[in-house]
Amino acid sequence: RVNPTRLLERIVSLGACGALPGGGVSRLALTDADAQGRAELLRQMRELDMEIRIDPVGNIFGIHAGVEDAVVMMGSHIDTVSTGGLYDGALGVIAGLEVVACLKDAGIRPRHPVVVAAFTNEEGARYAPDMLGSLVYSGAMDVDDAYRITGCDGSVLGEELRRIGHCGMQSGPRDIHAYVELHIEQGPVLEDQGLNIGIVTGVQGISWTEVTVEGRSAHAGTTPARLRHDAGLAAAYITMGLSDMVAAMGPAQLATVGALTLTPNLVNVVASRAVMTVDLRNPDNTALCAAEATLAKLMGEAEARYGVNVSHRTLARFEPVPFTPALVDTIEATARQMGLSCMRLYSGAGHDAQMIAPVAPAAMIFVPSVAGISHNIREYTHPDDIMNGANLLLRVVTDQAGL
Amino acid sequence: RVNPTRLLERIVSLGACGALPGGGVSRLALTDADAQGRAELLRQMRELDMEIRIDPVGNIFGIHAGVEDAVVMMGSHIDTVSTGGLYDGALGVIAGLEVVACLKDAGIRPRHPVVVAAFTNEEGARYAPDMLGSLVYSGAMDVDDAYRITGCDGSVLGEELRRIGHCGMQSGPRDIHAYVELHIEQGPVLEDQGLNIGIVTGVQGISWTEVTVEGRSAHAGTTPARLRHDAGLAAAYITMGLSDMVAAMGPAQLATVGALTLTPNLVNVVASRAVMTVDLRNPDNTALCAAEATLAKLMGEAEARYGVNVSHRTLARFEPVPFTPALVDTIEATARQMGLSCMRLYSGAGHDAQMIAPVAPAAMIFVPSVAGISHNIREYTHPDDIMNGANLLLRVVTDQAGL
Ligand SMILES: NC(=O)NCCC(=O)O
Ligand SMILES: NC(=O)NCCC(=O)O
Repeated sequence: RVNPTRLLERIVSLGACGALPGGGVSRLALTDADAQGRAELLRQMRELDMEIRIDPVGNIFGIHAGVEDAVVMMGSHIDTVSTGGLYDGALGVIAGLEVVACLKDAGIRPRHPVVVAAFTNEEGARYAPDMLGSLVYSGAMDVDDAYRITGCDGSVLGEELRRIGHCGMQSGPRDIHAYVELHIEQGPVLEDQGLNIGIVTGVQGISWTEVTVEGRSAHAGTTPARLRHDAGLAAAYITMGLSDMVAAMGPAQLATVGALTLTPNLVNVVASRAVMTVDLRNPDNTALCAAEATLAKLMGEAEARYGVNVSHRTLARFEPVPFTPALVDTIEATARQMGLSCMRLYSGAGHDAQMIAPVAPAAMIFVPSVAGISHNIREYTHPDDIMNGANLLLRVVTDQAGL
Repeated sequence: RVNPTRLLERIVSLGACGALPGGGVSRLALTDADAQGRAELLRQMRELDMEIRIDPVGNIFGIHAGVEDAVVMMGSHIDTVSTGGLYDGALGVIAGLEVVACLKDAGIRPRHPVVVAAFTNEEGARYAPDMLGSLVYSGAMDVDDAYRITGCDGSVLGEELRRIGHCGMQSGPRDIHAYVELHIEQGPVLEDQGLNIGIVTGVQGISWTEVTVEGRSAHAGTTPARLRHDAGLAAAYITMGLSDMVAAMGPAQLATVGALTLTPNLVNVVASRAVMTVDLRNPDNTALCAAEATLAKLMGEAEARYGVNVSHRTLARFEPVPFTPALVDTIEATARQMGLSCMRLYSGAGHDAQMIAPVAPAAMIFVPSVAGISHNIREYTHPDDIMNGANLLLRVVTDQAGL
């Protein structure tokens, strides 16, 4: 069984990197805070005598040696959004280290090497798409394309990677026997149902679009409404239209306008430009396509109604990803054997596991999030739930690794 | 008559200060660009042997000596919005200098000293309220209150004033015989009507409110719509509601949400906070109060619908200001004598003249704006129209000053 004190201490040490004054953390990918977090992670890995590899996109792999080539990998990410908590991502990485610590304590050299991965820029908050590090690792994105991505703050991914010294020369393990990711649910379902564990069957579809509205700056006091080309008003129209769409499509469809920037952003100037992000999600790809069609329709309506030009580019588009059924079954059976109450559910958030799933057996374990709150500094998961998840991870990984 | 080449050259020299690469100018009040503009203005005033005074809020007064105490003042401002043109404000100041140049050429020492004023922060784009310099000069705002105002970029007015060295020790002329401000219309009416000159009867009411929506940051992929407290969506709701209000109230009512800032402003985080500006205008104060009541209603509805907290503070509130009827009549009669076609109209934009009107006879002259465009780098007024306006100003001012 895992050591609760040791596990929680590791979480707190990592959480100190990028800690916000009012609680929570801001550790956007490849910022100084992320560099601190990476240094702390490397320190913890070295303490466990793990072999460390950093790949060209900054993914960190800590390896506890085994006998064969194929590895059992645990992993997640340590980047956060700028209003993040201690657990999103960090839990999967730190619990992985705790599993290794347990193997080390027991002096076990498993058949399959046991690897803990921390993937770069999972959140996608600074650089789109999300799950970028695992996407590159899985071979679905070229690393040179990743280097060229411009972030929401104008920074360029490749430059930031080199700046913080995490543009590695090594490659991660190629042969994955199984990938298991422990993560907080980040939603309200498990708590609602009073259950210990979520057996994650897959991840819903994710569609991110950046919408740019080009209007015309004009004087707020002299320009009649009919002569305006108000980019801000067009953006509000699209935002409200998406909200109406969600009401019409029902709770499976989500839509979020999380970022919106007006130019020149002054009180008495009609906005000449609005750049907004649209995050659409649905577990059903056909429904998600319908939502994207609604967005397209709203953009067209905004052009016609407000005399603006609306363009868009896709920041991320991932179809729903099912996890490997056999591995999902194994995890569920193990949880039940251990007396943990559980249910199957799909993930609302994107996760690195979904990028591994196309290339290797992959699945996830969820533990409850208090009030379903995440991407918020009040994100919290009770220590008991953390220990349940970590113990389940330990059991599944040791079973998979073969002792 | 004014000298067209000399006048236009002065406008171009001032326009070089804060010039934008694609045309137009950004000379927000008390920035380095404004400091350059002020230096250029002082240079031009010295060239005309004017006595220069700078008051504690940075208003610049150039004085061409006369015989009596009471002055005839021309004036406007040289600050701009960040997407401004060459004429908004600058025209009134530079045309004033051209009037002085004509007096000087003719060796005339008028009965009333002739003063050219450039008032600080007329635009209100950096520091609210607008017309701040003339408001302080007129005695309606305490200079110490002005010093404490925080700008849209977080700067503090008093600090910026000292930084650029324009926190003067002198005071402007106290006794104003007449104040006449030449300005571009910034709207489409004169061009529409094919007229040379607008005789401005007054300025419409202006209401600026900063609305702050406090919601809760949440995960865009896991948080059901019914559990969200989406500050960005609430801001969009208020924005659309104001647009509907304008449609219902008719063209006399204007509403603009020119600035909107979301926090944390990330693609996959429901916004925890939105700060937006609302600019409401109407020539009728009762109607403007009704629009303000609608804004209050929308803020309440947003709270109820989106589970957010909405607070607000007034950034500026000016009732409609009528100009001095006798002076308005004089200007109109003079224009007609000169063979200029003209009409009476009220101003949609706020102007320094409206702050002088309560303390001295004040009125304004408008010249046409091409396509009514202003607060846009494509703002333009034809040289012929500029000369018409400047010649009318010359005639009115020399009449008022008494030769
Ligand atoms: N786990 C997590 O919050 N991932 C971020 C990617 C997303 O779902 O937006
Ligand atoms: N003249 C002018 O554009 N003034 C700015 C103040 C306002 O009307 O918003």
